[in-house]
Amino acid sequence: MTTLPGPTVGVVGGGQLGRMLGEAASPLGVDLVVLDPTPDCPANRVATQVVGEFDDPDAVAELAARVDVLTYEIELADPDLLLDAEVPVHPAPDTLRTTGDKLVEKRDAADAGVPVPEFRQVDDADDLAAAVDDLGEVMLKARTGGYDGRGNRPVCPGDDYAAALDEIRPDADWRREDGPGADALAEAMLNFERELAAVGVRGADGRRALFPVTETIHREQILRATTSPPRTDEETVDRARATALDVLDTFDGRGVFGIELFETPDGRVLFNEAAPRPHNSGHWTIEGAQVSQFEQHLRAVLGWPLGTTRRRCPTASANLLGGVDGPREARLSGVETALSAPGAHVHWYGKREARPLRKMGHVTVADADDGRVAALERARAAAAAATFRGDGAGGDG
Amino acid sequence: MTTLPGPTVGVVGGGQLGRMLGEAASPLGVDLVVLDPTPDCPANRVATQVVGEFDDPDAVAELAARVDVLTYEIELADPDLLLDAEVPVHPAPDTLRTTGDKLVEKRDAADAGVPVPEFRQVDDADDLAAAVDDLGEVMLKARTGGYDGRGNRPVCPGDDYAAALDEIRPDADWRREDGPGADALAEAMLNFERELAAVGVRGADGRRALFPVTETIHREQILRATTSPPRTDEETVDRARATALDVLDTFDGRGVFGIELFETPDGRVLFNEAAPRPHNSGHWTIEGAQVSQFEQHLRAVLGWPLGTTRRRCPTASANLLGGVDGPREARLSGVETALSAPGAHVHWYGKREARPLRKMGHVTVADADDGRVAALERARAAAAAATFRGDGAGGDG
Repeated sequence: MTTLPGPTVGVVGGGQLGRMLGEAASPLGVDLVVLDPTPDCPANRVATQVVGEFDDPDAVAELAARVDVLTYEIELADPDLLLDAEVPVHPAPDTLRTTGDKLVEKRDAADAGVPVPEFRQVDDADDLAAAVDDLGEVMLKARTGGYDGRGNRPVCPGDDYAAALDEIRPDADWRREDGPGADALAEAMLNFERELAAVGVRGADGRRALFPVTETIHREQILRATTSPPRTDEETVDRARATALDVLDTFDGRGVFGIELFETPDGRVLFNEAAPRPHNSGHWTIEGAQVSQFEQHLRAVLGWPLGTTRRRCPTASANLLGGVDGPREARLSGVETALSAPGAHVHWYGKREARPLRKMGHVTVADADDGRVAALERARAAAAAATFRGDGAGGDG
Repeated sequence: MTTLPGPTVGVVGGGQLGRMLGEAASPLGVDLVVLDPTPDCPANRVATQVVGEFDDPDAVAELAARVDVLTYEIELADPDLLLDAEVPVHPAPDTLRTTGDKLVEKRDAADAGVPVPEFRQVDDADDLAAAVDDLGEVMLKARTGGYDGRGNRPVCPGDDYAAALDEIRPDADWRREDGPGADALAEAMLNFERELAAVGVRGADGRRALFPVTETIHREQILRATTSPPRTDEETVDRARATALDVLDTFDGRGVFGIELFETPDGRVLFNEAAPRPHNSGHWTIEGAQVSQFEQHLRAVLGWPLGTTRRRCPTASANLLGGVDGPREARLSGVETALSAPGAHVHWYGKREARPLRKMGHVTVADADDGRVAALERARAAAAAATFRGDGAGGDG
């Protein structure tokens, strides 16, 4: 057996984040091994794959045995299994537990003085009724397991509170007297001006850094597009930056963290939620920043020095989402049109099946001669041009 | 069998150029299959590998059967086998024949009016004597098979001409009356000011484009470092650009071409040689240009629209070469120091064995706030910091 030239990093999860980690690992001479239950997962073009469930102890042990250090790109990774691993794990598995529970995450942030929307713990319909009485319309969220808007729903005064809880927590037996409760929280519904995000990173020496603040544009609670810098004033960007750094300080361990924020009409910036991994709001850093969030994550988990988080130029990106008309074989077309947009970079995740609103790829426009608004328009137009065999899905169109 | 999301490109050769093609292919959703005789070749981290010799008909046929289009990253690819392939091949195999013969290449260029150093065909010692009488000191070159200075040697008046021919053409039976001749050429030795290079690309619609002109710094005939823009005046850069475009017009077919030039002390620009593939003088384009030479090559061979060849900022790179003390296991160290240089990007090709002066990786410094001289100094210093398990090889040090 030949000795590998560089270290080997193991990743729980082999989706698009794993694939982009693999793309960043190859130039560094770093080998990647991913654990993913889907054979031929997106990352396996640029990584070795262990086929297995994220929470399968044997599979996680096999992954750990093949690598020098472990990380994860999906919140379904099991903190307990990672704590048992015989190799270092970054970020700390406890952080996964914190960010995996939206109530704990929000409490920790509020306790640290970070501004957050008002929220209440909700374990049954009475709790929810009290929260709505108190806060008016709320966003009801499952504490754990939510993703891309799944596990969230708005609740207005007079709604059927029990039905709302059943919808976001279909498996929770919260009506039982001695049961575990609904494990939910209710947040005051914000009439926010826009959503912002920042990717933070902490290195081996405890040094932390923040990528430039980015505006994120959602629809149906799915990220559609980003633009950095955001279309807001400098003072708000500064406030967002300070808040994101405060949030970063509440997490333990090395690696990259995606931090989502709200900007309110009166100019406040509130913390929404965070993820201990590279984040969709930071995909633009591949072309738009000096060092991408994916390379930074690898540098951090390997104990290598962090790179600069400087933005090279105004940069926008738009997601390529699966069409709304049910699962179908994914086959890219229209890429020529997307590539014709000046400064456009196409990223296609290699997923075999397009499902409704599934993230299939993204387009980034990074062009030093161009302003942020033009970049955003071009990224959206380019994304809209790329379709799956005629089904017309694209960008945020 | 699932249908692949994107097209599949086959590459004869799986070295560092194949690896960097694979790194460029993944974001585009393009799968790569490489043919290389070395198991676990550099490209196989980011591509599927067919293990076989470059000129093995069965191996080339197997490669062709698995892909939508064929290209090559090494001049040892066999033009006749590629002409027989049942899928399109780009650039045209005939171009490989032209650039694979330094005499034909130089004659074609001279016939097209491109300025070249004076040269003579050399088939035996008498030819070489006549050339030296005529031109003074010459660079004697094997017409075919040379690479990184192998197959070249300087010859002065009074040298042993027969021994010189035996050295560069050890297998040629040029003394036989009815033999094939030495298949060499002699070029007037240039006292050049510096070496320049430009990567050109031709797309499916015949559109051609040229990356910005780059200065290449060689020692022992091996490329050590590049800096773009070059450290010369604008008029010379313009002349180099015009000459490179003229050279590009002498080649057929789609794809990327590396074009090497000499700048003379009196400001002339002469064509040296070209390669129908991505080129070491263009590695800086990965970070320093809007679209890299590797993505451009894929776009060209796939018939996709070319991207802009614009330089994003002054950019320098330095090669990481194997130490001079014989083959040894390659194991990267000092990467932390290299990564600490502001704006430094480390590329490690994953070769298992370090051989004297073998290209093992490179470092690029692309930093918009920084001039070309500082970038070159930082790239060289960063490269010098990365070593193979203590053997002290690095940069051009």
